[in-house]
Amino acid sequence: MARTKVAVGIDIGGTNTKFGFVDRNGKCLKDASLPTQGHEEAALLVKRLHEAITKEFTPLSSEAELIGIGIGAPNANYYRGTVENPPNLSWKGVVDVVGLFKEYFPLPVVITNDANAAALGEGMFGAAKGMKDYIVITLGTGVGSGLVANGQLIYGSDGFAGELGHTIVDPNGRWCGCGRRGCLETYASAGGICRTVFELLASRRDESTLRSVSFDDLTSKMITTAAHQGDPIALEAFDVTARILGMKLADAVTHTSPEAIILFGGLAHAGDLIFRPTKQYMESFMLNIFRNKVKLIPSGLPDGNTAVLGAGALIWKELAV
Amino acid sequence: MARTKVAVGIDIGGTNTKFGFVDRNGKCLKDASLPTQGHEEAALLVKRLHEAITKEFTPLSSEAELIGIGIGAPNANYYRGTVENPPNLSWKGVVDVVGLFKEYFPLPVVITNDANAAALGEGMFGAAKGMKDYIVITLGTGVGSGLVANGQLIYGSDGFAGELGHTIVDPNGRWCGCGRRGCLETYASAGGICRTVFELLASRRDESTLRSVSFDDLTSKMITTAAHQGDPIALEAFDVTARILGMKLADAVTHTSPEAIILFGGLAHAGDLIFRPTKQYMESFMLNIFRNKVKLIPSGLPDGNTAVLGAGALIWKELAV
Repeated sequence: MARTKVAVGIDIGGTNTKFGFVDRNGKCLKDASLPTQGHEEAALLVKRLHEAITKEFTPLSSEAELIGIGIGAPNANYYRGTVENPPNLSWKGVVDVVGLFKEYFPLPVVITNDANAAALGEGMFGAAKGMKDYIVITLGTGVGSGLVANGQLIYGSDGFAGELGHTIVDPNGRWCGCGRRGCLETYASAGGICRTVFELLASRRDESTLRSVSFDDLTSKMITTAAHQGDPIALEAFDVTARILGMKLADAVTHTSPEAIILFGGLAHAGDLIFRPTKQYMESFMLNIFRNKVKLIPSGLPDGNTAVLGAGALIWKELAV
Repeated sequence: MARTKVAVGIDIGGTNTKFGFVDRNGKCLKDASLPTQGHEEAALLVKRLHEAITKEFTPLSSEAELIGIGIGAPNANYYRGTVENPPNLSWKGVVDVVGLFKEYFPLPVVITNDANAAALGEGMFGAAKGMKDYIVITLGTGVGSGLVANGQLIYGSDGFAGELGHTIVDPNGRWCGCGRRGCLETYASAGGICRTVFELLASRRDESTLRSVSFDDLTSKMITTAAHQGDPIALEAFDVTARILGMKLADAVTHTSPEAIILFGGLAHAGDLIFRPTKQYMESFMLNIFRNKVKLIPSGLPDGNTAVLGAGALIWKELAV
């Protein structure tokens, strides 16, 4: 019997690096993860990944065949095969990640940033299946995005297109990790909604369970829990977040006119709390010709495996060209 | 001798409709225009155009051969071949413009909005020649735009992508013709800079020749002339306009990461007065990974013929596919 062709999908993150063997239908035959140690060089991580991938693949080798390696990583550059000054990894400067992998694996290797990988995954296996124009937005620690137009991911002239988290909401607004002020990410990320809660706690007099939590301890999950219990500060924080996100999504629609916008990541787990008001505000800010045309939907990929499936889709897509 | 293949490029505008015979190298063999009467039906305009095109083409017919018709028009939809509720024409509802042309011409006919046509023209014959990722922005009566990524115009899911004039600068800002508030168009168009002058005249005490001009009489050209003479209100108006435009261009870069942004139309004629500060503000608002990478340049097409050449490029591009 012919062996099943599988891609290795790898998601390099600040805390963990996950990988899995992804077939053409988006089925993940097996997955595993290893800790991404904070002060480890890229070369060492790749070496450990080679060992782990080999170990996990060996029992599958009679039924499966590796076709290539797709990698999603923060600040990855598709054109150059590099990761450049990643915010949550200790790697400095420009690291030739594709080159490092090729030293260990005699296979095609492609890399892109994590949000782009997620966008490809949604298109191939998930909520954007069959769509030619869509946007995927991750509302996690940061706000990442992948834009697809005419059936192709938009990399742009330098490979870094799709940074909607750094569109400017207010030039005099909150300080952002990027050094500028008022980026969407400072409002619509997991950390952004925490900052909004602290502003509301300062400006309002409503009672709230969140008044007993320090800035360091507050998480977006706590805000979700409080909102479900009717906490007025938490509910208002979702409304403020949704208004800003909805406005910037309406702006994004004027650029590429997507069929759907797919939200995933930590804040998207709040479900209706974030989807309903964001959709409402998005429509209220929408240019008439686009109104009530653009779907706002959650990821169609299994939670926790989005990035691995996306990285797998990346190499499947690459080899199909 | 083989006849030169030419495309008919047609630019339908609110005041005039221009057309020309455009060869593969962007040379316009001949052009002409006819008034677009305010209350004329689309069918009548097409009939008159057929007469005019036939008349102008007859003397060329021994040396040239028509390959097709490309049309640029406000609110045109590439997918449907229609013009839908155009703001500056008296046509109501959805007009099947491609269908009307096909009644008169046994040729391929394609339509797109005027800014998209300009973008194709710049890519094929002008300032974006050889570029795969760029944005063309018209700063005219309105602010239009055409986005090219991966060498293809972005039409989006419904054919209306690229409406950067309707990204939102300030949700509580100036009223826009689209019914919403704070669109880029209300600041960065010819009319937008006039509105800025009136705000400045109200808030400042500087002497200015513009204090003697009524709102109805003021034009962006007068503001340019005053600025060249050192008028402080006019100079400040360019600075305010450039700051807002620069910020929204930085946002646009985060979407598609273009190699260049090309500005044309009335306000772009102010040259350095608008280009220099816009570039400066764009860079100051730019996400670090894009900083000092994106060119801000004027149109590379002959003034006055941009739209006709763009419409010609549209059909050349279409037939090459």
